[in-house]
Amino acid sequence: MPTLRKDPIGGRWVIIATERNKRPSDYGESVRSPQAEFCPFCAGNEDATPPPIAEERTGDGWDVRVVPNKFPALRSEGEITRRGEGIYDEMSGIGAHEVIIECPEHISDIAELDTAQIEKVLRVWADRLRELRQDPRLRCAIVFKNHGAQAGASLEHAHSQLIALPIVPKRLAEELEGAKKYQEFRDRCVFDDILQQELDSEERLVYQNEDIVVIAPYASRFPFELWFLPRRGEPWYEHADLRTYHCLAEALQVVCRKLNRALDHPPYNLMLHSAPFTDEDMSHFTWHLELIPTLTKVAGFEWGTGFYINPTPPEEAAKHLRDMDI
Amino acid sequence: MPTLRKDPIGGRWVIIATERNKRPSDYGESVRSPQAEFCPFCAGNEDATPPPIAEERTGDGWDVRVVPNKFPALRSEGEITRRGEGIYDEMSGIGAHEVIIECPEHISDIAELDTAQIEKVLRVWADRLRELRQDPRLRCAIVFKNHGAQAGASLEHAHSQLIALPIVPKRLAEELEGAKKYQEFRDRCVFDDILQQELDSEERLVYQNEDIVVIAPYASRFPFELWFLPRRGEPWYEHADLRTYHCLAEALQVVCRKLNRALDHPPYNLMLHSAPFTDEDMSHFTWHLELIPTLTKVAGFEWGTGFYINPTPPEEAAKHLRDMDI
Repeated sequence: MPTLRKDPIGGRWVIIATERNKRPSDYGESVRSPQAEFCPFCAGNEDATPPPIAEERTGDGWDVRVVPNKFPALRSEGEITRRGEGIYDEMSGIGAHEVIIECPEHISDIAELDTAQIEKVLRVWADRLRELRQDPRLRCAIVFKNHGAQAGASLEHAHSQLIALPIVPKRLAEELEGAKKYQEFRDRCVFDDILQQELDSEERLVYQNEDIVVIAPYASRFPFELWFLPRRGEPWYEHADLRTYHCLAEALQVVCRKLNRALDHPPYNLMLHSAPFTDEDMSHFTWHLELIPTLTKVAGFEWGTGFYINPTPPEEAAKHLRDMDI
Repeated sequence: MPTLRKDPIGGRWVIIATERNKRPSDYGESVRSPQAEFCPFCAGNEDATPPPIAEERTGDGWDVRVVPNKFPALRSEGEITRRGEGIYDEMSGIGAHEVIIECPEHISDIAELDTAQIEKVLRVWADRLRELRQDPRLRCAIVFKNHGAQAGASLEHAHSQLIALPIVPKRLAEELEGAKKYQEFRDRCVFDDILQQELDSEERLVYQNEDIVVIAPYASRFPFELWFLPRRGEPWYEHADLRTYHCLAEALQVVCRKLNRALDHPPYNLMLHSAPFTDEDMSHFTWHLELIPTLTKVAGFEWGTGFYINPTPPEEAAKHLRDMDI
């Protein structure tokens, strides 16, 4: 049974995922390349995964398929229990850990999918969030995508993952708190202000369409870090209107193609930040996607401080991508 | 000129290090192995580094040598200026970025140095901190060590780095705040309580000597994460007494040798957390060292949440290292 444990100093929670238990001798394997001869995510190999939680179908086969993670970090069955162990605090590791298989064919890069297929994936993310928010044990969910072995992908076939949690994780809590303080101080939403300034100056603007704006953020932690922001502030990704998913699909396709040309098909992590599962007022927050290409190594300084050294100013990254033909 | 920029949502600062400016085509190089034919850190090649800031000598040559980083993330000259750019905040990138060359011979692993040499390195860290805290522009410093290319080292020769900052970085600020709250709530120091519980239960204990205790922390973010704690709580590493550096050298040597045997010479990051440069009461805080072997990849979930999934319970990691002969 996985457990959640809280660090008594910094207050950070971690998942001790005993069901993916690794012995010291197992760590060599992470270096192996994920070039699998047999791919459990390809159409025809459905038996190799647990039974699907959801499927998006238009014709005979499936277009997008959602399955439970075979080695889940959290378990979906059971009650949430909290207990102390001396001075320490722990919680049962309840949650959901799902895999979204993004296409039936063995394609690894979503930039190669057509816009309609990417849109289906983005709508399935929203469907899953709408379903999971019904579970009173869960407080929020994050959808993320690890593309390429260097970015942590263990299988090549295009897929994303969803983890739903019984607590609001640190990074999201900090964003919510920071955005709330900003609104209290300025009576405006920080996301609106960012959008306004970035559209006015254009120096960090990468791409825009009807509903989505892509920028290299002012305080980018990493070279070529990118944020995808909706023009209309909406706290919950799952409550966006359908046109938004279409525009986001287009933005993802164009921007990933630009990245592929600019940085020779970089590995990357893509993360959806969406407000927690609550009915409280969240008007200070706007869902958004963050993309981080895996170009530099996070090392002692970053781990020790939570401070990042970025050798490429976002203005340069943005200009480079803006000018890149696809 | 490097600048510090603040993220308007989460409040995190980053260093935009223009002096290490990298163009997109430069990113391939980070994959190259750091096997240098010519080593600028070896005795005899002193001309290849900037002139030393400090040297520790006993005989003819130097034993430990401190030089400015050739590609500093921050600049030491100038005033601290703050300004706004629309809704954003920035600060001039003032600070110090030094490299501590840990031995004159071309040895890459401190586990191969004798205890007396490691102790010299640890005392030089303290010397540098004592000197830098005189600079009123600086608020704190972090010493860290990236061992192995996978952990971000760009040169093989054993070395550590020191970065002094004009602000207290997020992670240290969180530790200070968490420890302060704990003290207000319980009237005890959280570090004392951790030490007490770990020495009583022994299940996460890795090693101990007269002054230093090494544990796998209860809420380990990473497999085989280790903390080195002094028995006598002291907020500032640079104010520890001399015997402590001797005991810490011994602990580092033994534990790194154990890690080398248990995990086949893993790359790792080592970070010193020490209280900020202030005369305020910091009795709620204790300096300590954190060591993180580079075994798993940090990916979308961790970046998106600040939440970690650790597949190896610290109890198992500790038992494995405790039982490992060296």
